Amino acid sequence: MRVLGIDPGLRNLGWGVIDVSGNKLTHVANGICHSSGTDLALRLVSLHEQLSAVLARFAPTTAAVEQTFVNKDAVATLKLGQARGIALLVPAQAGLAVGEYAPNAVKKCVVGVGHADKKQVAHMVKMQLPGVVLAGADAADALAIAITHALYYRSPSLREARAS
Amino acid sequence: MRVLGIDPGLRNLGWGVIDVSGNKLTHVANGICHSSGTDLALRLVSLHEQLSAVLARFAPTTAAVEQTFVNKDAVATLKLGQARGIALLVPAQAGLAVGEYAPNAVKKCVVGVGHADKKQVAHMVKMQLPGVVLAGADAADALAIAITHALYYRSPSLREARAS
Repeated sequence: MRVLGIDPGLRNLGWGVIDVSGNKLTHVANGICHSSGTDLALRLVSLHEQLSAVLARFAPTTAAVEQTFVNKDAVATLKLGQARGIALLVPAQAGLAVGEYAPNAVKKCVVGVGHADKKQVAHMVKMQLPGVVLAGADAADALAIAITHALYYRSPSLREARAS
Repeated sequence: MRVLGIDPGLRNLGWGVIDVSGNKLTHVANGICHSSGTDLALRLVSLHEQLSAVLARFAPTTAAVEQTFVNKDAVATLKLGQARGIALLVPAQAGLAVGEYAPNAVKKCVVGVGHADKKQVAHMVKMQLPGVVLAGADAADALAIAITHALYYRSPSLREARAS
């Protein structure tokens, strides 16, 4: 199984790909899709193109996207929602099932506690994927999401707990 | 000029196409793209496919999308944001410039006041596009957005007021 994890964002959209074989996780690649400028529609097209290229290059068999943190800033939530729409769309267009995980579930899975900071997440991602060179914090988060997806896949009890 | 107006929504995404020739507006088509089910990624794929089919069939030369009303419900804002991402993406992928208009600007343009209700909007859309048969309230809103875009295009003073 090859997992694509995505940490959605309009300016920086992190992605990470890992291979899963039994209990063994292997890093494949990670990176960040960038978009900037004032034309929102063109930024979304750019994210769509970059993420589609990642799919075409690394051919993951399943995908997972972080559930956006809904904060009190409605404008930021809307922006994130638009980028998240693209993050969900691209793997689904390629025929992949797309899992969704809350940030706390990801942190709990990778670090062991639900309120870890970004540094801790990056540290634990490095521990679990020896030799990985991280493209940035958003890419580390994306790999953490991929690791979480892998763990949920091989743990029926976790899957059931999540569904209930 | 052929204008595609879009009223974004996850469950019901309204669209409307009009032809603009000088001061003359002519209705071309209107409708609603529906999505349902629990798999958000598949719903976004479905909206993308339906809206792409509208583009392919009616070949608009420019597009406009309603600026989402940012309410106090962050979950609803996020959902809308995801659908809005698709609404902006599809015409931009086809190479169209995509305008954005606030709901109040659309109402002011079509009805004359910024706080008109949906019935008034539908009524004025029917007045301005004689003979139109509306697929629903979301389609009426989409045609209102298309009319607004047409008006802004032919009024440099309105365009400047909007830009400032």
